Amino acid sequence: MTKIDKPRLERLQKKMAEENVAALVCRLPENVVYLTDYWPHHGFSYAILPVTGEPLVFVPEVEQDFAELGWAKVQPFGWGLLKDGDLYENYRRLLTQAHQSLDLKGKKIGVDRSFEVIAPPYRSAEPVIRATPWNDLLADVFSDAVLLDAFNLLQNARAVKTDYELQKLRIANEISEMGINDALSKLKPGMTEAQLGALVEYKIRADGPGYKGARLMRASCEVAAGPVNSTKATLLIPSSGYVIKEGDLVMIELATIVDGYWSDLTYMAVAGQPNQRQKELHNHLLEAQQAAAQQMRPGASFSDPDTAARQVLEKAGLGEYFVHITGHGVGLRYHEFIPFLMPGASGVLEKGMVSSVEPGIYIPGFGGLRIEDNVAVGENGPIFLSTPRKPW
Amino acid sequence: MTKIDKPRLERLQKKMAEENVAALVCRLPENVVYLTDYWPHHGFSYAILPVTGEPLVFVPEVEQDFAELGWAKVQPFGWGLLKDGDLYENYRRLLTQAHQSLDLKGKKIGVDRSFEVIAPPYRSAEPVIRATPWNDLLADVFSDAVLLDAFNLLQNARAVKTDYELQKLRIANEISEMGINDALSKLKPGMTEAQLGALVEYKIRADGPGYKGARLMRASCEVAAGPVNSTKATLLIPSSGYVIKEGDLVMIELATIVDGYWSDLTYMAVAGQPNQRQKELHNHLLEAQQAAAQQMRPGASFSDPDTAARQVLEKAGLGEYFVHITGHGVGLRYHEFIPFLMPGASGVLEKGMVSSVEPGIYIPGFGGLRIEDNVAVGENGPIFLSTPRKPW
Repeated sequence: MTKIDKPRLERLQKKMAEENVAALVCRLPENVVYLTDYWPHHGFSYAILPVTGEPLVFVPEVEQDFAELGWAKVQPFGWGLLKDGDLYENYRRLLTQAHQSLDLKGKKIGVDRSFEVIAPPYRSAEPVIRATPWNDLLADVFSDAVLLDAFNLLQNARAVKTDYELQKLRIANEISEMGINDALSKLKPGMTEAQLGALVEYKIRADGPGYKGARLMRASCEVAAGPVNSTKATLLIPSSGYVIKEGDLVMIELATIVDGYWSDLTYMAVAGQPNQRQKELHNHLLEAQQAAAQQMRPGASFSDPDTAARQVLEKAGLGEYFVHITGHGVGLRYHEFIPFLMPGASGVLEKGMVSSVEPGIYIPGFGGLRIEDNVAVGENGPIFLSTPRKPW
Repeated sequence: MTKIDKPRLERLQKKMAEENVAALVCRLPENVVYLTDYWPHHGFSYAILPVTGEPLVFVPEVEQDFAELGWAKVQPFGWGLLKDGDLYENYRRLLTQAHQSLDLKGKKIGVDRSFEVIAPPYRSAEPVIRATPWNDLLADVFSDAVLLDAFNLLQNARAVKTDYELQKLRIANEISEMGINDALSKLKPGMTEAQLGALVEYKIRADGPGYKGARLMRASCEVAAGPVNSTKATLLIPSSGYVIKEGDLVMIELATIVDGYWSDLTYMAVAGQPNQRQKELHNHLLEAQQAAAQQMRPGASFSDPDTAARQVLEKAGLGEYFVHITGHGVGLRYHEFIPFLMPGASGVLEKGMVSSVEPGIYIPGFGGLRIEDNVAVGENGPIFLSTPRKPW
């Protein structure tokens, strides 16, 4: 059993108390992780956190041993085998018991209602989501209470990371880099984008488990190489069967989840030796990325890192090619909404916030480059959770 | 552009007409695939099918080239770049236009409302789902129409596959077997479960693209080896760092999606040579699986394959170890609800239905075995979409 991360639950319960929320009932895997440190296997799990006291997690029996590695009290239920009966009847029984034992009649209950962008359970082949059956069940069981949307409450609480969470995010980044570095050591002309990306995923899935106590992980790697594909990669595009040529720019975009905590990295490489123009562009971009990272300090605005990156690129005559934002939160989801590092954003960075820092330039006919690290706001400035890149 | 699968849309539109549904508005990736043959990259896409006429698909601009490989008319919208503005405003504008041009005022519109088990978009690291923002937007834009839950309509239509769909499922199975066979050729004592599973995924991700026109794919492979882990694998459990030993039973469970179409397979192997008891159990189980598959014929009940498998295992004194159902639908999701091959199930198999056929036995102290193929109901009996297994 993991030791409970008290600062995390205290932060959340303080926000619950401020909004007079007596309990949270969370179904999405990312919020189950947040409340209990258990990353659900199948997505049929849910967690309840009262405003005082400790969390409960409800999981299929087949997951019980795994859930008990988290810090919540585990209540198993039957699911999936012939003996188990109807899942929604099991849900109803357990929710009704919790309603009574936590004395929630007439009280406000927060549910994770407005999340449309979600992180998957471990079984990412088949997420299980909240939809009409779950919504109707909650409305019925808690008909004598008030259900409200805890989207903002949860997002705001999750935006500031504890030391425990920073360490988990650091491990996710280290495992990601293990995959990228292994694949880069094997990069050579003649490979396809798909083969290079598959090498990254293989290393993580094969050798990640056990690294610094990490248990379960998945990786999604996409490679965009050569002048055409890398220019298109302003947003994620899938790896293709394109055969990488000598001298091609190679962009490696990687999302990795380790026990519920995410890393989001983009690495640049060249198949062979970079030419002078590639070096210059890479190094301007790296300078922009480092300038942005330097703004990851308490009190800076969400737009300050973006402004810093844009200024460097404009000075180098590359401003028009930087068509996206500079970064987004990373934590229990690949893309968190807090912070969002973009022009005009008015939020204020706080110690413990974590963002991707990922300026990019996409030059038609030449190619695209993006450099992305995950950076926390430290008391005195940026803390890189991934390894800062070096000039070419 | 893919040639439209007319039998599929005609089947769906006939069911829409029977229920007086003027149009379907679908957001979940699996239903976008069903209507348009485009597997969304990011999950921000949606599709509309009028009761007469052809489907429309609405996708982020970055996906436009890919979506045009499907058969629907593609309408791109801005998402994700600085120039793109607010996503939900873009949705509102396009939905309002569609509402007007399809003349839906006062009519019934089916939405994919009750799906709680879903298939991910290609970016499985971050599914995008229907939740309150999308539901509220639809209710607002279509306030002068009637929104109804098309869960049953869609599930029933999807349950019977066309020749086009069977061919797509066959390709997904062939790619899955490519991964499994490659990994089995490398299986040896000393590997961990995680390493063996990662080899399966690697082969599919690296070399699957291009196979018989297949483009995008993902694979989730879990390995359960040795007497303890394989016995626990009555339902999917994650691969672990367990080191496979000489003589261990090795269960490989694999879910693969290829361009939106799924395969769900379980293979058994032994690290080294199987012993007599392993051979006997495997061959009893295979006999049960083949008996079940023989019941995949038009007019049989959903319970007939299950009964057939159970009879074989009971006769061999193994009935008590078969604790789960015999199979479930496979198609645009890893687990479809039609058919569901279990005791007491009263549905009737129709030509074109596809199911996993996967009896298993889990013997404490000895180990677990499951053999799973994907089998279609053909006019004269079963059509294996995967390769039937041989006795040991």
